[in-house]
Amino acid sequence: MERITLERAAKLLSEKDDILILMHKSPDGDAVGSGYGLAMALRSLGKRADPLCGDEIPKVYSYITDKVPAIGFDPKFIVSVDLATTALLSGSAAGYAGSVDLCIDHHGSNNGYAKEGYVDGKSASCAEIIKKLLDIMQISIDNDMANAIFTGICTDTGCFKFSNVTSDTHRIAAELMDCGADSTEICRLMFDCKSRAKIELEKMVLETMEFSPDGKVAFVCITKDMMEKSGAAQGETEGIAGITKQIEGVKVGITMREKDNGEFRISVRSSEDIDASKICALFGGGGHRAAAGCSIFKEQTEAKKEIMAACIAAVEEAE
Amino acid sequence: MERITLERAAKLLSEKDDILILMHKSPDGDAVGSGYGLAMALRSLGKRADPLCGDEIPKVYSYITDKVPAIGFDPKFIVSVDLATTALLSGSAAGYAGSVDLCIDHHGSNNGYAKEGYVDGKSASCAEIIKKLLDIMQISIDNDMANAIFTGICTDTGCFKFSNVTSDTHRIAAELMDCGADSTEICRLMFDCKSRAKIELEKMVLETMEFSPDGKVAFVCITKDMMEKSGAAQGETEGIAGITKQIEGVKVGITMREKDNGEFRISVRSSEDIDASKICALFGGGGHRAAAGCSIFKEQTEAKKEIMAACIAAVEEAE
Repeated sequence: MERITLERAAKLLSEKDDILILMHKSPDGDAVGSGYGLAMALRSLGKRADPLCGDEIPKVYSYITDKVPAIGFDPKFIVSVDLATTALLSGSAAGYAGSVDLCIDHHGSNNGYAKEGYVDGKSASCAEIIKKLLDIMQISIDNDMANAIFTGICTDTGCFKFSNVTSDTHRIAAELMDCGADSTEICRLMFDCKSRAKIELEKMVLETMEFSPDGKVAFVCITKDMMEKSGAAQGETEGIAGITKQIEGVKVGITMREKDNGEFRISVRSSEDIDASKICALFGGGGHRAAAGCSIFKEQTEAKKEIMAACIAAVEEAE
Repeated sequence: MERITLERAAKLLSEKDDILILMHKSPDGDAVGSGYGLAMALRSLGKRADPLCGDEIPKVYSYITDKVPAIGFDPKFIVSVDLATTALLSGSAAGYAGSVDLCIDHHGSNNGYAKEGYVDGKSASCAEIIKKLLDIMQISIDNDMANAIFTGICTDTGCFKFSNVTSDTHRIAAELMDCGADSTEICRLMFDCKSRAKIELEKMVLETMEFSPDGKVAFVCITKDMMEKSGAAQGETEGIAGITKQIEGVKVGITMREKDNGEFRISVRSSEDIDASKICALFGGGGHRAAAGCSIFKEQTEAKKEIMAACIAAVEEAE
């Protein structure tokens, strides 16, 4: 993949027409906001542009997707947004895996699958790059585009909370609000809406919470039975892995999730002085220093006992 | 109170010395960030300045307060920040209620207790005004000042979520990050830290959750027994009143809290098409359209039944 400047990407898009924009499977706010936002912008120039995701886009994003009804055409230029690797394309989008002309992404790990690509690993969201791209293309950003791009930014930064936020993130958010982005409603939809099933699941998960005697290791479990009884969707377990680490005094938070065939999938989050990836490596897993994962194929009580013991030992070692 | 420009406020502060800065009781992030941020800024000009709050400042703000050890002097100029009325002064600060020279505030309801005052009701936080004031005074904002002011902004906006957020809010946040504000750590401390007692309380409260048959009214209860068993502090019930309204499909969220002498204090949050203040007026209470409160002096089950019935009726009427 030839690494190009954003100016070159802008030039390419200005020259082309019948543009198909690919998004990754299990689309999140940044994929939807970037893909649909770019499609709206290209259409505002009189071009034909369709976003394409192999998976269904969650209903919560309908305020974005409703503004871009599919046109349907024989694509002449294929763009990907927020896509680190074509392995993340699904369904009808997967068919274009080998023919991506232009990639616009913010994953430092992008594996260079396109002909040309602009990748900025320091950008908190792909949507921030889309905003800069539209500015270079001198596209007038209307409130629908602003809503789409703002959605990408706020979701990929946990509402401006995560460590990927830069002053540029806030500056672009300000500009999007000036273009009409409804930040209050977007934040409400993205962060302050829960299904009854998710509330039910949270209640059950809190019931399983246990602490080490010194309170430095916290544990919760999500069983298949809880998923069934609550009616929560798979995606709704997101965020639960963060609950334990939020508690005062907790240095290691464990979330154990029951999968099929006797597997317990374990997620470990740790404070700076404890290496979660080392703990998970003991069970054949891995990950980052602050967040790692592994699987234990044992009975529930035994699995819990083993991971708790490993985490308690790691805390003791760090002191 | 003479309403003055921010330029006049800057001039006053530039001319004066031995400045005492008053903050309201039960100090929140905006009071602490504005008061301590301004004190740091004035000290950077070689002036003597002390922040003063009649209540103890919560430990969570120690990264701000530790930077401003009290000097102690006979004050010659009294300033208030984020203070709508002197009725909100407590302890040692209350003694200065009648002698405030300059008030800097963002409450539209400010009742004009000072000699001169700058009040901008459109500003999401008082800290945003302090940032603008420091710019006019051409004070170089260091990272401690930036952390203080950023704290005021993010806490008064629910981490950039509330409807008071303007593009100015994000623009100022960006400038503060460029001055060294550690947004990640501040957001973690302010929004992602919970005591074990609070988690315990949340678990108990979720257990009490009930819905109307159509799922449009949701109810939770906090009893004195729960407060005692969980060990949660009074301030830790904040946020719980918002839980019910976050649930998909819920139009009216009720939080009932047991007080002394057989009182149940009720908070009602409603969607746009339902007037919470009208519901609460039925029980002698009041408030805003979207958030109101009242008290019912009945046995718990009866109190719940009455408020649920009133809310269900309000939903039916709105349809």
